[in-house]
Amino acid sequence: TGRRARGGADARRAARTSTTVKQAGFIRRTIKPYEPFSDDQLEMIEHNAETVLQETGIDFYEDEEAVRMWKDAGADVKANAADPKRFRVRFPRGLVRSLIKTAPREYVQHARNPANSVTIGGNNTVFAPVYGPPFIRNLDEGRRYATIEDFRNFVKLAYLTPWLHHSGGTVCEPVDVPVNKRHLDMVAAHLRYSDKGFMGSVTHPSRAADSIEMARIVFGAEFVDQHCVILGNVNVNSPLVWDATMTGALKAYAAANQAPVVVPFILGGAMGPVTNAGAVAQAHAETLVGVALGQLVRPGSPVIYGNFLSSMALRSGSPTFGTPEPALGSLVVGQLARRAGLPLRCSGAFTSSKIPDGQAMTESAVSMQAALLCGANYILHSAGWLEGGLTMGYEKFVMDLDLCGAAHTYLDGFHLDDDQFALDGFHEVGPGKHFFGAQHTLRHYETAFYEPALADNNSYEQWRDAGESSTE
Amino acid sequence: TGRRARGGADARRAARTSTTVKQAGFIRRTIKPYEPFSDDQLEMIEHNAETVLQETGIDFYEDEEAVRMWKDAGADVKANAADPKRFRVRFPRGLVRSLIKTAPREYVQHARNPANSVTIGGNNTVFAPVYGPPFIRNLDEGRRYATIEDFRNFVKLAYLTPWLHHSGGTVCEPVDVPVNKRHLDMVAAHLRYSDKGFMGSVTHPSRAADSIEMARIVFGAEFVDQHCVILGNVNVNSPLVWDATMTGALKAYAAANQAPVVVPFILGGAMGPVTNAGAVAQAHAETLVGVALGQLVRPGSPVIYGNFLSSMALRSGSPTFGTPEPALGSLVVGQLARRAGLPLRCSGAFTSSKIPDGQAMTESAVSMQAALLCGANYILHSAGWLEGGLTMGYEKFVMDLDLCGAAHTYLDGFHLDDDQFALDGFHEVGPGKHFFGAQHTLRHYETAFYEPALADNNSYEQWRDAGESSTE
Repeated sequence: TGRRARGGADARRAARTSTTVKQAGFIRRTIKPYEPFSDDQLEMIEHNAETVLQETGIDFYEDEEAVRMWKDAGADVKANAADPKRFRVRFPRGLVRSLIKTAPREYVQHARNPANSVTIGGNNTVFAPVYGPPFIRNLDEGRRYATIEDFRNFVKLAYLTPWLHHSGGTVCEPVDVPVNKRHLDMVAAHLRYSDKGFMGSVTHPSRAADSIEMARIVFGAEFVDQHCVILGNVNVNSPLVWDATMTGALKAYAAANQAPVVVPFILGGAMGPVTNAGAVAQAHAETLVGVALGQLVRPGSPVIYGNFLSSMALRSGSPTFGTPEPALGSLVVGQLARRAGLPLRCSGAFTSSKIPDGQAMTESAVSMQAALLCGANYILHSAGWLEGGLTMGYEKFVMDLDLCGAAHTYLDGFHLDDDQFALDGFHEVGPGKHFFGAQHTLRHYETAFYEPALADNNSYEQWRDAGESSTE
Repeated sequence: TGRRARGGADARRAARTSTTVKQAGFIRRTIKPYEPFSDDQLEMIEHNAETVLQETGIDFYEDEEAVRMWKDAGADVKANAADPKRFRVRFPRGLVRSLIKTAPREYVQHARNPANSVTIGGNNTVFAPVYGPPFIRNLDEGRRYATIEDFRNFVKLAYLTPWLHHSGGTVCEPVDVPVNKRHLDMVAAHLRYSDKGFMGSVTHPSRAADSIEMARIVFGAEFVDQHCVILGNVNVNSPLVWDATMTGALKAYAAANQAPVVVPFILGGAMGPVTNAGAVAQAHAETLVGVALGQLVRPGSPVIYGNFLSSMALRSGSPTFGTPEPALGSLVVGQLARRAGLPLRCSGAFTSSKIPDGQAMTESAVSMQAALLCGANYILHSAGWLEGGLTMGYEKFVMDLDLCGAAHTYLDGFHLDDDQFALDGFHEVGPGKHFFGAQHTLRHYETAFYEPALADNNSYEQWRDAGESSTE
């Protein structure tokens, strides 16, 4: 972890002035996260999460090995009379919190190109593209099923942009490839068309194992056993169920000393309570159980504390995104993850909009801002998300990158040396004059401001004459 | 100030379920502002602001009364050899900071309808519409000059929405009304078509006086002398100049015990340094001088610490909005204003986009978020802004209101009682079931989530079949 982050002004300069591909590496934030909640409040949430684990418990389904590990660790295990493959596990207060202590706070995920290795945890933030959509959308074709060609396109785009630091996982579902070999093609694309870090498959324990095996071919088995080179995004079947597909994948990654990202998926009112406090307490409980299971498999193995909180339009049952309740939830979850000593995953540019319009960007900006404020270390879905995650948008991907780029400047904070205070500038310019030609301005103008690639800052007349509007 | 704020869940319920006009009042935030900067850093900024005031100073133009007041207060005043109407005022370290101590931290701006009076300062946030555009835009007509009819429309719209708490000032420039009587028509519209608080004219000291006189007709001269009933938004001629139009208006409001909003207008690289630290130090210096002048006129008179920071596309000289540098600047300014003990004005839904598109909403969401995070007490330009403030958009106004509404929930924070933790819900539902029909959900679903008015959360098929897209 001695690697020096190359964020902030250096990265901006590199990204702007070079004609070759330069990478921002990852972000080492200098401004602390937004932590509006008190220790007392956080302790109440932790207490209630433990109450849920102790009184209600979690069902493990079709994974007797996991159930046995919990029993050996001191949990209360009861068979389900109606379903012999289902076991209810209840956790004595404090058990899970003591098990997670072996998980590392910060570690490196090594990339094929060492310059693209990322440090996960601490003050660092890593952006990764969207994960999971079966559809793509672009201006020419509208919405259609995604293919392996789209998958490779997005791997290449994520490789080329300096504002994403990670190649992600299922950047879209290549539905033209049979399911039984799809994971092989996806991992191969990450290895072939990018040299940034990536995620492997989780849809079956054997596919998780295949993904890790492919990483071993590239990195060497010994290196992989000692270093994190691949992540796997495992979802809880919220509320309060872990099934064998997910625990199987989780155990495969942990056993190989690779990092599962443990993610409850809660739309308040459906997979959890409609009230924010209850949903967050549930998410915290579900996540910690997954993290602890990984530590039971291999103490000290890397892991990421994940979450996926969203709200719901209760009249229609549709999920909603970019709303204030999950934004608050992220702030709480950020504080909880740091108290637990675990790297945090949040989600970036969420929206329920079907196209990259005003609604999409309102919701995506609010959602991304919440992830930045809460101190997330790994931000999945940073670029491309449309339609509640069902569609990966080509244009939306590029629009979201402007927000990712801006985050490099935002998290770099404020610089307070004499030159930044421009004391010579005030002496040179004085009252009533402009700073355009000041020596201070000339020294700084090349790197002074983050410039989004897409924003049109021209005058109305320039914009109109450029034919941007067909209605004028 | 004993009035109880009616924000949060009550306001949401009122806004959603009532068929008559209900008001959110104003927001009493329960989550603290985001304060990423240390006392040491803030002291450096304050120190450098004082250095600018002491070494470079501020020019006062055509206002000998103000110059005399500064001389009597102990400032160093030098005539300008080339221009007898211009005086350079330099401020001994500490002078300005000691003068502002008489300004109130928190006060009520009384509205004609007492239920719409707002508390300015402290933990309170008040939303007001856009100020100043000479143009309007709507879908039917495109962009054209604004008229008094547009002005009245926006006063009525700001009155009707529960998410704006204030009628604002020059919601658009009614260019069909002669300049010499325009201010009378504008104030009359605020008084006739709304009963929320409002702002008066500042374009000439006599027009400021007329505005206050109209307020006296409505509220009574004695009441006005003892209570704040009108605000006036006065701009510094940045960098480092106060002219007689603005000091004249400022003095008129202060003398009448009404509240000037003191606003430096700095686009970094033009009216101030291109570096953030220098721009913020300059803004702080300019603001405090204006606040202090008001206190010299009438100690204890109300005032608002304002700012208008933005960045610039340095290749074109165009202002840019919703960028990360001014977002950071707002966070610093928020901390500085609270250290100075002054209510803070920030700006809301900024954009340089010409139409209410994805760019507009990206920039507006980021900009509004910065105002919320920094703890702004009065957020001007909360709804309607387009094209760097040159255009007031009808559709943009409604789109921005969704962000204003969301802020009511966001600033209301997290609630942590047993019912919010849904402990009965977990017992009722248990692992693997859904919460749709749970007793806990039924108790809460009516008010559980903030629902934006415009967001389309339907499925792709519903959206497509509703004909939202003409390209499918």
